[in-house]
Amino acid sequence: MKLLKTKQQLRAWRKEQSGPVGFVPTMGYLHEGHAELLKASVEQNDVTVLSIFVNPTQFGPNEDLDRYPRDFERDQALAESLGVDAIFYPSVEEMYSTTTTLSIQPGAMATKLCGASRPGHFDGVLQIVTKLFHIVQPTNAYFGQKDAQQLALIESLVESYDFPLTVHRIPTVREQDGLAKSSRNVFLNNKERKEAAVLFQALQHGKELVESEARTDDVIRSVKAMIETNTSGRVDYVELLSYPNLEVQENAPLSILATAVFFTKARLIDNILIERVNAHA
Amino acid sequence: MKLLKTKQQLRAWRKEQSGPVGFVPTMGYLHEGHAELLKASVEQNDVTVLSIFVNPTQFGPNEDLDRYPRDFERDQALAESLGVDAIFYPSVEEMYSTTTTLSIQPGAMATKLCGASRPGHFDGVLQIVTKLFHIVQPTNAYFGQKDAQQLALIESLVESYDFPLTVHRIPTVREQDGLAKSSRNVFLNNKERKEAAVLFQALQHGKELVESEARTDDVIRSVKAMIETNTSGRVDYVELLSYPNLEVQENAPLSILATAVFFTKARLIDNILIERVNAHA
Repeated sequence: MKLLKTKQQLRAWRKEQSGPVGFVPTMGYLHEGHAELLKASVEQNDVTVLSIFVNPTQFGPNEDLDRYPRDFERDQALAESLGVDAIFYPSVEEMYSTTTTLSIQPGAMATKLCGASRPGHFDGVLQIVTKLFHIVQPTNAYFGQKDAQQLALIESLVESYDFPLTVHRIPTVREQDGLAKSSRNVFLNNKERKEAAVLFQALQHGKELVESEARTDDVIRSVKAMIETNTSGRVDYVELLSYPNLEVQENAPLSILATAVFFTKARLIDNILIERVNAHA
Repeated sequence: MKLLKTKQQLRAWRKEQSGPVGFVPTMGYLHEGHAELLKASVEQNDVTVLSIFVNPTQFGPNEDLDRYPRDFERDQALAESLGVDAIFYPSVEEMYSTTTTLSIQPGAMATKLCGASRPGHFDGVLQIVTKLFHIVQPTNAYFGQKDAQQLALIESLVESYDFPLTVHRIPTVREQDGLAKSSRNVFLNNKERKEAAVLFQALQHGKELVESEARTDDVIRSVKAMIETNTSGRVDYVELLSYPNLEVQENAPLSILATAVFFTKARLIDNILIERVNAHA
């Protein structure tokens, strides 16, 4: 397994590859969710590139950039065990050596869900993903459904700007009690960790309400109440939107019910997709 | 020479190429300025792709999209004679088949010069150039110095988003009397065509003033007066900025003196680069 720290090293390695290249961009501190992305990539491509880069431009001024968890040696061992061919592990200076007045703006798709409470977050995500796509030039790229809004935006980016690659959606991996795997779960105290299982239970409950034709307002109120009653967390949002367009749309063929909850040291997100039978598309 | 009308056809042709691919994106109605771009590309690459696409997203609502001049057969013959290997000639529907809320924003670099009087113009330019770069995947791309602000923005786009290609600046080609070659020159009446030579004369005069340490305000006033006195056109702007950053900066190592002038049916642009000896960089 190659460890490549500069764009130049990555580009030189990339030139030697002739078959399909799979790519899994991450911020490191890998968990089983990332492992699923890597397994899919290793299975579907001749070679797989994992990038590990805690991207400063997608963190707000009061967010957890400085204390975002890192463990490069553990990540490296996991990647090697899964058959990854190259890790791209650049410094901040390597990735942001030039200044520009240009930016990629997510527009209306980022005014909902996490975009509303993390202004500028998706600008940073689109910036780094565009750069990484241009450096790695993958055939296939793998993203987790847990970061559903990020995934929807990247799908729109790739489709509308004709990036020569295919984006693959990989299902959320969960702990035994249903909590979605996340690098930030490590920030939960014991009490919060037990409570956090309620997020997925509440989303499942909400899904049942949607499927029994409940009104959107009632679904949201019910999910929110269930989280607030059974955890010490503060609900940032509960929203029900069409997916992947993220619009308010009754009876969309595919919807997303999503939530974000602040605990003492971590803001957790989770979501569930709901397919409508008999949808008025 | 191949004529390719869909992204799929272009991508299939591109896959067959193994050496360097040169790319010249245009809106067609080719003139000697385009010919210089194509000659440079043919000389420096194994194969050359010319795209001809009058991009609607870079025209404002009151601009000349509908009457932009077109002559595909003449363009095709010229391309063939210069050794072009493939023309990409897509429809508007082919290029804009999907909707998105994403956009590439040029930011402060587009608040000056043409960006000030053509709001949204460079958003459209960056959009189509990004799409074409992803479809053609060129090794080298060629742009004319006449569209200096466009060129500066594309250089910033490529550098800051790590596009895997090199942008080449090609000098402006001029008529015998100094008028910069442009597809829009065809819209000048006889009187205006004679007057239009003054634009370059005024820029040369301005350059001499800069080189003799005149104040920026005086340079601009003098160039503007020379154009207004000797033509029937209305000056949109005369500006002196650093290049390629397009900032107000006294004593920049490289500056651009640029103008845009409205005639009856055409808005012409021209510019001249000024290198400073003994610059305080």
